[in-house]
Amino acid sequence: MKQISMKEQNQEIVLAKHPSGVPTPDTFKINNIDMPTLKKGEVLLKSIYVSVDPGMRGFMNKGEDDAAGNKFQLNKPITSRTVAQIVAIDTDHPNTDNDNNFKVGDIVHGRFAWQKYQTVNIADIEKVDPTLAPISTAVSMLGVPGLAAYFGLLNIGQPKQGETVVVSGAAGSVGSMAAQIAKIKGCKVIGIAGSAKKVAYLEDDLGLDKGINYKQVDDMQATIKEACPDGVDIFFDNVGGELFDAVFANINRHARISICGQIADYNESNPPQGPRPMHTLIKKSARIEGFVVYDFADEFDDAKKQIADWYNNGDLIYKENLIEGFESIPDAFIGLFSGENIGKQMIKVGEVEE
Amino acid sequence: MKQISMKEQNQEIVLAKHPSGVPTPDTFKINNIDMPTLKKGEVLLKSIYVSVDPGMRGFMNKGEDDAAGNKFQLNKPITSRTVAQIVAIDTDHPNTDNDNNFKVGDIVHGRFAWQKYQTVNIADIEKVDPTLAPISTAVSMLGVPGLAAYFGLLNIGQPKQGETVVVSGAAGSVGSMAAQIAKIKGCKVIGIAGSAKKVAYLEDDLGLDKGINYKQVDDMQATIKEACPDGVDIFFDNVGGELFDAVFANINRHARISICGQIADYNESNPPQGPRPMHTLIKKSARIEGFVVYDFADEFDDAKKQIADWYNNGDLIYKENLIEGFESIPDAFIGLFSGENIGKQMIKVGEVEE
Repeated sequence: MKQISMKEQNQEIVLAKHPSGVPTPDTFKINNIDMPTLKKGEVLLKSIYVSVDPGMRGFMNKGEDDAAGNKFQLNKPITSRTVAQIVAIDTDHPNTDNDNNFKVGDIVHGRFAWQKYQTVNIADIEKVDPTLAPISTAVSMLGVPGLAAYFGLLNIGQPKQGETVVVSGAAGSVGSMAAQIAKIKGCKVIGIAGSAKKVAYLEDDLGLDKGINYKQVDDMQATIKEACPDGVDIFFDNVGGELFDAVFANINRHARISICGQIADYNESNPPQGPRPMHTLIKKSARIEGFVVYDFADEFDDAKKQIADWYNNGDLIYKENLIEGFESIPDAFIGLFSGENIGKQMIKVGEVEE
Repeated sequence: MKQISMKEQNQEIVLAKHPSGVPTPDTFKINNIDMPTLKKGEVLLKSIYVSVDPGMRGFMNKGEDDAAGNKFQLNKPITSRTVAQIVAIDTDHPNTDNDNNFKVGDIVHGRFAWQKYQTVNIADIEKVDPTLAPISTAVSMLGVPGLAAYFGLLNIGQPKQGETVVVSGAAGSVGSMAAQIAKIKGCKVIGIAGSAKKVAYLEDDLGLDKGINYKQVDDMQATIKEACPDGVDIFFDNVGGELFDAVFANINRHARISICGQIADYNESNPPQGPRPMHTLIKKSARIEGFVVYDFADEFDDAKKQIADWYNNGDLIYKENLIEGFESIPDAFIGLFSGENIGKQMIKVGEVEE
């Protein structure tokens, strides 16, 4: 492996101001910065693939930093799930956390800063297994989106063969996985998305039983009823808002509603209002449950192996929407809210060095 | 057992008009009717204890009869859970459903009409075990309210020792049971009710850790926070509306919210609106679940034995608010919405004949 070229200019992208509504280019600012110096217990990373997700929008609002650090601060770099390569390790100070035996050249992932190069504590990186699937999938199909789909559908939804599953945001990084896993489990699966192109993707590429373009529907509640004549047993919701209400009106007794994301509301300033669901929950003995993937951290390794198996056997497909260039990260993030994307939005910001 | 006196005038109470908001006396009408004639496969019942519950309000709205018969029809008798005595059985036509070996004099319960005497199919009655507890409890502590508390707290809430449980409507027929079962399970229990008298009942008679009179509180969210410094792990909700929002704002990670009733909304004409709970459910990996007791019908016998054991051992107390007289049923029902009652509202409408 060659040395890092010191001629390459290191860069970072910071939160320039708190957005109001959908973020705009001036939400972000790109800065030239110095190459970092390796300190005790650290590794120097070169960013390779940066992942952007709608859920990050919530961390851009003004407000106190919470205990988990889940707010971005002004003039500090944004962070997101990233695949990186170790270009240097502080070998003078062997780190006792280095029980994964990390070495220069290894591909790792973690929640890293939007920086071309950065140093992080060795305790904050995880090894990527390049034998499972392409390394970019460590933050997509085998990362938070894939694991959210896996656990949200299987552990929260508990699908049984022959049940009807509705997935909103079904062409997205999480929804496309949840929908395919439901198909693998023998369910009838209806996917909701926002364009004819996406509906074609759902029906032709993912093999769902039906795709619905919500932008072309006047009465979504009636459309769901028609698509699900036996009612809805599981609703895997990435969207929320009125789309939630329309699906929720069609749930069966003992329905499970897995709340994964609420992209309809991420740009709202005030807590959104809607019909209270409690009466329906009683009448249907139904359940609405939220989750984050880290609830299931103990089961991550098994889940990754299972997903990789399905992928390598052709039981599911995974589409990444790849943009090139570090400076493209803000546009890629903003683009998430235009509803145009199919698959997981990723930005390739560097080449792996052999 | 003596014969039914044919001099007693049979009576019924019917739905005279669909109420708008809280029912009023003219919602109901009392009629003199003939003594019924026993038909094939039937028993003749004399009503002893009639139970009234807030949840019945929903069945009084105008609308098509649903499959489960869960709407009351104009000029037809209201029905509710009732304890009755068998005064005659059609012995000429032995009923193959009579596998409980019912006989004249037996105390039974079921969902019966508001009639002093009525005939019902033998398949629609269940035997009361008078050795467990006083017979009136078959439709209170050992009936739907007690079973709702039991399963809603234990099966939906899944309490663990040391957790914090909040119960709304805590002085009511369900809430008082749920709160005491949570205490038996080693939880810290905060009860919310609507009068100083009820709060005294919660703290002094039921032994809860704290009672809160919501009518005397300006900022319920802050009051709950103060009463639950470790946050709320289980919320057993009988009330809904803004009280729900105030407790919900204080839930812990992995909180379970058991939706038993929503008395705040039963008299609303339109589906009530409120803040959407989804973001909090995600953030807290929490769950809102509705249920009806019949979801757990397979476990009723064991639950009744357990509740009766606790009752007979003095681990829990159960208060019935008993009114005398068939003609008092409508007032007793209307009184449920005034917030004055402590314990289960029951009406004694007849004497057991020896």
